[in-house]
Amino acid sequence: MKLDIILTAQEVYPQKVKGKTVIVIDVLRATSVMTTALANGAHQIIPVLYPEEAFALQKKIGKENVILGGERNAIPIEGFDFGNSPFSYPPEIIKDKTLIITTTNGTRAIINSRSASQLLIGSFLNDQAIIEAVKKQEEVVIVASGSNNLFTLEDSLCAGKIAHQLQGLVDTDLSDAAIAMAHLYEQNKNNLHALASQGQHFKRLKKLGATKDLEYCFQSNITKVIPTYTHEGTLVCL
Amino acid sequence: MKLDIILTAQEVYPQKVKGKTVIVIDVLRATSVMTTALANGAHQIIPVLYPEEAFALQKKIGKENVILGGERNAIPIEGFDFGNSPFSYPPEIIKDKTLIITTTNGTRAIINSRSASQLLIGSFLNDQAIIEAVKKQEEVVIVASGSNNLFTLEDSLCAGKIAHQLQGLVDTDLSDAAIAMAHLYEQNKNNLHALASQGQHFKRLKKLGATKDLEYCFQSNITKVIPTYTHEGTLVCL
Repeated sequence: MKLDIILTAQEVYPQKVKGKTVIVIDVLRATSVMTTALANGAHQIIPVLYPEEAFALQKKIGKENVILGGERNAIPIEGFDFGNSPFSYPPEIIKDKTLIITTTNGTRAIINSRSASQLLIGSFLNDQAIIEAVKKQEEVVIVASGSNNLFTLEDSLCAGKIAHQLQGLVDTDLSDAAIAMAHLYEQNKNNLHALASQGQHFKRLKKLGATKDLEYCFQSNITKVIPTYTHEGTLVCL
Repeated sequence: MKLDIILTAQEVYPQKVKGKTVIVIDVLRATSVMTTALANGAHQIIPVLYPEEAFALQKKIGKENVILGGERNAIPIEGFDFGNSPFSYPPEIIKDKTLIITTTNGTRAIINSRSASQLLIGSFLNDQAIIEAVKKQEEVVIVASGSNNLFTLEDSLCAGKIAHQLQGLVDTDLSDAAIAMAHLYEQNKNNLHALASQGQHFKRLKKLGATKDLEYCFQSNITKVIPTYTHEGTLVCL
């Protein structure tokens, strides 16, 4: 398997992802929220770039079965139903609903990766299911979305974990970035939360009071659900 | 000290470097060559983006005191005097000469970083001099140039080494990328050449027969010379 890691959403270009299996990761918190919402029974998720698109789409689909979620710079968006905490999307809220979501980094990474042959949404929450799903692919690209066009520790460590574990399962040919992040994960795996907690985005969320989210999003393998991007621009269970 | 590492030349934007002390690193081989050429007595170095610029500048300055050096994709450029091996620039060749140089990644990183308040050229060869030169600065950005817009192990490990050693000397506030690379360096410092030798660009140079260069460029602290960028667009000794 050829395995690359792209270290920010901004560096995703069609030629890097076209025709490949792509895993988009935004641990804090977009892809953790998406995975949680589908695991809790959401009918589908529609990622959009701008709040205006979300409002227009809600109008088109009808308010009844639609929930608007997301953030800008970790702050909920005015007029939206919920922000970007996974705890805002329990089954009693999200079951059978369409979640329209826009976030600063994760949704951009997904939309930039649309030319992939298969586009999967990953996080620590579904890491083992992701590994199982991609292990027979020939070319895999993991997008560590980062925050505001910057590298983040939590996304790179999650990408490194997947790369490192794939190395143990199949023959791999890793890019320099994948080698670096697989090492970084492996050498810090017993200390992952402590290392990630030094990150700028992590510290900002902590300051905003998202302590529960910061624990939740680092849990490994709590669901087998993998959101996958469809030709219709929606995310559904793989 | 606020300390950031930018992981490819492509991600250098004026707002990330303007008014800051910037260290540009391209271990294999642009910044190792520049440092070597000045250490061996070159009068000045002029980095340019394109071979055509190099020929035009040579015509303007006069052939007598000018040497054209550089590469495209690690291959010497037709009509140039030398390629991108540090061994092409011994004192008997380079002393008192102007070296006009264009390379695939390093010269682009330098030119993208021109809005820095101070722009220094770093490599393993002058790593300790670089640390000494910047340790009292308030904002330092290290640019790991990478190769063809991709992250490379050798540049990131060199950047990580400087970040890690600065952490030991002064109070530092590191970006996520700087934390990651400082850890990667520290956890692999006894194994640096072996780790870097897994890199794509390293392997390509080895295949092209540049084995001597690959040993030379990983030597630490063999010179105190630091090339620094002037308002005239030249590199001279700091």
